[in-house]
Amino acid sequence: MEKGVESLPRTLELITDPQSGLAKLCFVEQNQLPHALVISEATQAQQITVAIKTLAVRGAPAIGVAGAAAIALWAINECEGTDAAELLESLEVLAAQIIATRPTAVNLSWGVKRVMHLAQRLAQEAAGPAIIKQALFNEVKLMEAEDEAVNRRLGKIGAALLPEQCRVLTHCNAGSLATVFFGTALGVVHTAASQGKIREVFSCETRPVRQGARLTTWELSRAGIPCTLLCDDAAAVLMAEGKIDVVLVGADRVCKNGDTANKIGTYNLAVLARHHGLPFYIAAPSSTIDTSAETGKDVVIEQRSADEVSLVLPDNTQVFNPAFDITPHDLITAIITERGAFKPSELAAVY
Amino acid sequence: MEKGVESLPRTLELITDPQSGLAKLCFVEQNQLPHALVISEATQAQQITVAIKTLAVRGAPAIGVAGAAAIALWAINECEGTDAAELLESLEVLAAQIIATRPTAVNLSWGVKRVMHLAQRLAQEAAGPAIIKQALFNEVKLMEAEDEAVNRRLGKIGAALLPEQCRVLTHCNAGSLATVFFGTALGVVHTAASQGKIREVFSCETRPVRQGARLTTWELSRAGIPCTLLCDDAAAVLMAEGKIDVVLVGADRVCKNGDTANKIGTYNLAVLARHHGLPFYIAAPSSTIDTSAETGKDVVIEQRSADEVSLVLPDNTQVFNPAFDITPHDLITAIITERGAFKPSELAAVY
Repeated sequence: MEKGVESLPRTLELITDPQSGLAKLCFVEQNQLPHALVISEATQAQQITVAIKTLAVRGAPAIGVAGAAAIALWAINECEGTDAAELLESLEVLAAQIIATRPTAVNLSWGVKRVMHLAQRLAQEAAGPAIIKQALFNEVKLMEAEDEAVNRRLGKIGAALLPEQCRVLTHCNAGSLATVFFGTALGVVHTAASQGKIREVFSCETRPVRQGARLTTWELSRAGIPCTLLCDDAAAVLMAEGKIDVVLVGADRVCKNGDTANKIGTYNLAVLARHHGLPFYIAAPSSTIDTSAETGKDVVIEQRSADEVSLVLPDNTQVFNPAFDITPHDLITAIITERGAFKPSELAAVY
Repeated sequence: MEKGVESLPRTLELITDPQSGLAKLCFVEQNQLPHALVISEATQAQQITVAIKTLAVRGAPAIGVAGAAAIALWAINECEGTDAAELLESLEVLAAQIIATRPTAVNLSWGVKRVMHLAQRLAQEAAGPAIIKQALFNEVKLMEAEDEAVNRRLGKIGAALLPEQCRVLTHCNAGSLATVFFGTALGVVHTAASQGKIREVFSCETRPVRQGARLTTWELSRAGIPCTLLCDDAAAVLMAEGKIDVVLVGADRVCKNGDTANKIGTYNLAVLARHHGLPFYIAAPSSTIDTSAETGKDVVIEQRSADEVSLVLPDNTQVFNPAFDITPHDLITAIITERGAFKPSELAAVY
């Protein structure tokens, strides 16, 4: 098998179907991994919202582009209105529905709003529906390209922070699978691996949905990077035994003060890293930084179904299943974006 | 359903079968919980070693008594030798096999050695096989009774340490199911609940074997104590939100300096508790205290199969799956035994 990040599939790709002429979003069906690499195709916005809700498409940067693509699919394939005002009206209803699908990652609303602003601007400029549809398609393609370019830039910035022979502990999947291509936290790893700097990656299982066990192991195996899987509750032992050099994770929303929302379990690791004197890095594109949220208190944490944790529950047993947690800025060594690696206190001056 | 700890089954019970006259160990088949409460019966030592290895019987105090019962079953039901020397010789081979089944919990070797010393003493005093067999049976019955009595005593000592309306975070199952009856960490909870002091117990799932999700939720539900299940990686959020008053867990081996081996994930929680200023208690009978181990470095940590963590692993993915970890003494507020609640530094003077 070809090794390295280039051997990974593109997670999302908007194309025009040569037969039907419909716009089509091809996406890696992440609930099938690691059993099988299945590429699904959506031609309707509703298929994308379902894919986002069921985590078939997941990862903050990826759902940002997928949300924008849902807007484009509706406009191009589904909207029957013949004037720009009608089109815009239906898109606004859809945009609100998509954004509500998952509240924590800011990228989803960022991506949807980006294409909506474009459509609104064009409509104000008296563009017709055909122009708007084409512009939406083009914008999604631009977002795809930008996502990869941004990840490659932040990958280089992050890799420079890692020591030689680095042993990285990561959580969830902030990899190529969480983006259009290349990854954020694992984008840093892919870059560092290409420089010969990665000795091993330790992947936390990431209960309840097990993205670390299912996705990160698969992605790193395919890219040829040594990976060891551990249960989330074993992380501190590895740190105490001196087997970890850095903790490196992605983000779903970075607040103005640097407080960071990410997959549940991130905060656990940040506390453990601090106790063991290890650097704790967040890697995320600028689109994840939400300066309208002053602190973590301003972030809505998505609560998910008890079924994700346990299908069999004795009587009167409750389940606490937040999908995300907030890591306070004072536990974060640096936030790595495509513009640089910033201490949390430096963010406000840059963004 | 009857509520309270008295509604729980006895985890282990050695009886004489009235029909066959064979000795028989009845035990709760813990791998069937929470789906079904199944009581299995063993008449052969080998059945018990399999049950211990497969975690059908688990929990440090329970496997101590089960190991002793395996010796008794062999002597009474299986040994064909007609003199004490032959009996003793075969028991010594068996004892070594049983102790090797699970290396970390000291109770297993403690329980097996206790009945072996008895058999050796009686043989030296020229007792015949029949006397030795009866003495082994009686000793196991005494150990059963002592286990419950010890747990009830440490339960009272521990309950006195808890605040009113206490919210307890626990890990794995250090409950009645981990002992002959009543439990250690959950013995403290059962006692405190009977005093009206327990508001809620938060049970960590405890990957990979999920004793928290399968056993602790079942035990607390049956006893009528409110329980909330969480994934191991969500513990820090509960602490940060001020929803936990104390962390309370059992132990598999407490070293002379107070370093404590317990289920993997315990050390994670101890670090998190320290960061959040929460008391962290170990509850264990004196049989768990191993003064021959000076520190945690002297404890062998059992490594278990990768299959427990993930049945599907991409190529070249390793798994780190220790069954236990060591919590250093300086993270432990007190070790609660039936003799009192001791700071780790006080242990050496008492034991």
